[in-house]
Amino acid sequence: MPSHSAFTLADVGFAVPAIPGMAECDIQTPCLILDLDALERNIRKMGDYARCNHMRHRPHGKMHKSVDVLRLQQDLGGAVGVCCQKVSEAEVFARAGITDILISNEVRDPVKIDRLARLPALGGRVIVCVDDMDNVSALSAAAIRHGTTLDCFVEIDCGAGRCGVTSAEAALAIAKSIDSAPKLRFTGLQAYQGAMQHLDTFEDRKTKLNAAIAQVRDVVGLLEQNGLKPELVSGGGTGSYYFESMSGVYNELQCGSYAFMDADYGRIRDAGGRRLDQGEWENALFILTSVMSHAKPCEAICDAGLKVQSVDSGLPVIYGRTDVSYVSCSDEHGVISDPGGVLAINEKLRLVPGHCDPTCNMHDWYVGVRNGVVETLWPVSARGKAY
Amino acid sequence: MPSHSAFTLADVGFAVPAIPGMAECDIQTPCLILDLDALERNIRKMGDYARCNHMRHRPHGKMHKSVDVLRLQQDLGGAVGVCCQKVSEAEVFARAGITDILISNEVRDPVKIDRLARLPALGGRVIVCVDDMDNVSALSAAAIRHGTTLDCFVEIDCGAGRCGVTSAEAALAIAKSIDSAPKLRFTGLQAYQGAMQHLDTFEDRKTKLNAAIAQVRDVVGLLEQNGLKPELVSGGGTGSYYFESMSGVYNELQCGSYAFMDADYGRIRDAGGRRLDQGEWENALFILTSVMSHAKPCEAICDAGLKVQSVDSGLPVIYGRTDVSYVSCSDEHGVISDPGGVLAINEKLRLVPGHCDPTCNMHDWYVGVRNGVVETLWPVSARGKAY
Repeated sequence: MPSHSAFTLADVGFAVPAIPGMAECDIQTPCLILDLDALERNIRKMGDYARCNHMRHRPHGKMHKSVDVLRLQQDLGGAVGVCCQKVSEAEVFARAGITDILISNEVRDPVKIDRLARLPALGGRVIVCVDDMDNVSALSAAAIRHGTTLDCFVEIDCGAGRCGVTSAEAALAIAKSIDSAPKLRFTGLQAYQGAMQHLDTFEDRKTKLNAAIAQVRDVVGLLEQNGLKPELVSGGGTGSYYFESMSGVYNELQCGSYAFMDADYGRIRDAGGRRLDQGEWENALFILTSVMSHAKPCEAICDAGLKVQSVDSGLPVIYGRTDVSYVSCSDEHGVISDPGGVLAINEKLRLVPGHCDPTCNMHDWYVGVRNGVVETLWPVSARGKAY
Repeated sequence: MPSHSAFTLADVGFAVPAIPGMAECDIQTPCLILDLDALERNIRKMGDYARCNHMRHRPHGKMHKSVDVLRLQQDLGGAVGVCCQKVSEAEVFARAGITDILISNEVRDPVKIDRLARLPALGGRVIVCVDDMDNVSALSAAAIRHGTTLDCFVEIDCGAGRCGVTSAEAALAIAKSIDSAPKLRFTGLQAYQGAMQHLDTFEDRKTKLNAAIAQVRDVVGLLEQNGLKPELVSGGGTGSYYFESMSGVYNELQCGSYAFMDADYGRIRDAGGRRLDQGEWENALFILTSVMSHAKPCEAICDAGLKVQSVDSGLPVIYGRTDVSYVSCSDEHGVISDPGGVLAINEKLRLVPGHCDPTCNMHDWYVGVRNGVVETLWPVSARGKAY
């Protein structure tokens, strides 16, 4: 059990997969590791981009669910606050002192609305999305009850096909209702085009985003005509943020995956036709896995299966290797094609997960690594915060 | 916030999705609920089957990861112990007082082997699988170091295509090595045919299992010829247990999913051609979800997406409804086709998850429900125990 730390894993009851000071090769697998150098470069790069393009950057905390990663996004990237999707996530970020929180989602359950309305009392702005007039009075009543003010975005469905209204008239009606409701403030628009983020080519994504921008521009125009100019128009993802930035309509970006990257985003192409993970962003998130069986000469079995990663967007990719490939997955195992029989038992591999968001949510810890040494452990602060 | 309990969710800081005494309609979503009546019937049924067929039943704890569900399987179903896949899961069950634990998997990492060898000191039998001669000396050394004895199964790959040796000669060589290693005991065979469990027809599954049984019988024969008759021959899943039971070769069943059921197992057919969830087993596990947006007349959005369920084996099915269907999924949302526009905001639906094992592993709590009232909360004791 070699370790460069004064403590061993046994000292902490094996409750964590690593200890600061430990060599990367001694980390207990499977677990999530972060390449801190790559992470910091990604964060600085997006921060520089947003600043140069006069955009607010409110990174999506639903991706990493980590107070520590968000603080890095604030410190190195100038992030203005955080987005999240659930009241329970917002509670985690608010209690950690984050003072500008957007729940980029609707909150309809009475208990959740009550929890939401408590949050501004912790000292920050809390914004929630609305896509239904009937929601307004419930939000207002809860804010009155708790003596707080809730900021509200109207959500526009500009192509994601989930929540949100589709017509400018419906958006205006809800904005008016918010504007006249006690203890609510109409703050802006949520307009995230989620469905196009993973289209392969830049041109295909541009076509979809241009349609979304035109729709949002119409909504903004109608609101302005009615004296309800939105303070914030928020949206954008890792596959689209340049379009929103150039639109003249949006002023806030919500990109989250850029910081960690994953195999599904890595495959799509930038304006020059390059893969996104070969220039624009670096892979900073990996599942560290170990070979734990090699009973057949050309097939190795590793210890990372469905319980440490979501395969909804495809299987993971073995980082930096072309001689072996991850070919199938069951609950606790990954099958690795090893035609040359090169893998050894206990050899460690870095997997780039297919889809970062639901993968991170399965883990309790990020192990931060730099130059082959464990530098830090960060809890996945809002892991499992789904309700 | 109606509640039939003396406490409210606010009293416990919303740390749990429900409180005993609460009506099912007041449970915070999304979360896992267990229909306790259905669960108990499934458990008694498998227990009766195993007893009548003179089989030991060692249910797979990797499915539910719950000490409480396992205790029910022992108390109502006569379960002899538990299987699990990871040392960290075994630690949870051993510390909870479970005294016959099989890790139906290989353990190769030196730190994990060291942890494994500590476990028998807690007072029970701990069995681990071996598929490589090189593993034997490491296991033996660790058992010597901790003054314990480790029981060992040789794992046969009888069709799952993961770990395990494929030839009887290889199995014999490993069994001999175990038998002669200090502080190890050769206890039996692990022979789980995982790949056929979800084949649609009984006949297709029977063909695959017959091949597996023939292979296992050969191994057992060779071991017996060499004075190494296995005490236990263990395997079987929810799609196959009747074949192992009738084989005359196996004496221990490992079925896990029968207790909860899921949509993927529900679709396959029993000997009479009936779906498994329409006779053999009942759906006892559900994801409770709420409708949280209905901005388009024929499409409702619910609050259960990829972070509360694994879709590796298909989307969830809405239980007891034919008028609405779950058609797609993103991180936090499910899209429900509602052609009649019948769903109301905050209406709750029970989803049968596509695949129970990786779904349960995402949650912190099971909410046990009987007759529409919350009866108990059980922690998902080994959630996230992957390393």
